[in-house]
Amino acid sequence: MLYFEDFAVGQRFAAGPRRVEAAEIVAFAGQFDPQPFHLDDAAAKHSAFGGLAASGWHTAAMTMRLIVDSGFRPAGGIFGFGGELLWLKPVRPGDELRIDSEVLELRESRSRPDQGLLKARVTTYNQHGETVQTFTPTLLVERRPASRTGELERVKGIEPSS
Amino acid sequence: MLYFEDFAVGQRFAAGPRRVEAAEIVAFAGQFDPQPFHLDDAAAKHSAFGGLAASGWHTAAMTMRLIVDSGFRPAGGIFGFGGELLWLKPVRPGDELRIDSEVLELRESRSRPDQGLLKARVTTYNQHGETVQTFTPTLLVERRPASRTGELERVKGIEPSS
Repeated sequence: MLYFEDFAVGQRFAAGPRRVEAAEIVAFAGQFDPQPFHLDDAAAKHSAFGGLAASGWHTAAMTMRLIVDSGFRPAGGIFGFGGELLWLKPVRPGDELRIDSEVLELRESRSRPDQGLLKARVTTYNQHGETVQTFTPTLLVERRPASRTGELERVKGIEPSS
Repeated sequence: MLYFEDFAVGQRFAAGPRRVEAAEIVAFAGQFDPQPFHLDDAAAKHSAFGGLAASGWHTAAMTMRLIVDSGFRPAGGIFGFGGELLWLKPVRPGDELRIDSEVLELRESRSRPDQGLLKARVTTYNQHGETVQTFTPTLLVERRPASRTGELERVKGIEPSS
């Protein structure tokens, strides 16, 4: 578990590969994005995708699973405000996805002395090394309890005892 | 089915409500975002969420389903490059989500005379009228075949016959 103080700009966390099966693409789409190019290969051939492709939301969800399974383990969990989500190439049956997350920015929260803000860029690649998705979220990360105590003492004007 | 030419800035498309069940929250999280605050109400009570909350990716996927089920039916399907995705409030068991999509911007594609770009803002609300998510995607939308013919004729320097 990593507290806000344990992160540094430039740190990277990788995970994968994770193979994407046609049946998963169809199952996800049936529930959340039932459009012909996500449901049926024959119909998809006549679409802009030219063949079965995963819903972008499925790619995003698989990416999240890879993030959770990576060494990126902020104290308090992985959650935040969202950010820019871009889909650059379709994800196809048989693709093997991997991710690379990079810490871009760290700043203390003005309103919450117990939390810091961590901006990251999560890039999702296929087996050819092509970028299929980028996501640039801002996350909330717990500060180390010692730092929080220090913060409270500063706020109260009390010197920490040595 | 709506071609690029059928859309206008300011057009809106609504859908919902769609009730969110605790079992769905847990099932989605088990597959894509297995963190305690998305999996178990007791564990979630001790987290920043203070109780079971849907994965943001689940909120996004449910929003996509509402978009597909709304009157927003661009020719060629709903797909694009992504955009800014922001989570503003947690989604809880029993919440009833609805969406409101608004067309923000329309422009012709420079590289593809058969497609146009449509920027929209999709706002997801809960039953209290609170915004839980906003998504501001840029979509690719097919142009009406007649316009495409016109485009080709312009490109070739041929006057359309009247």
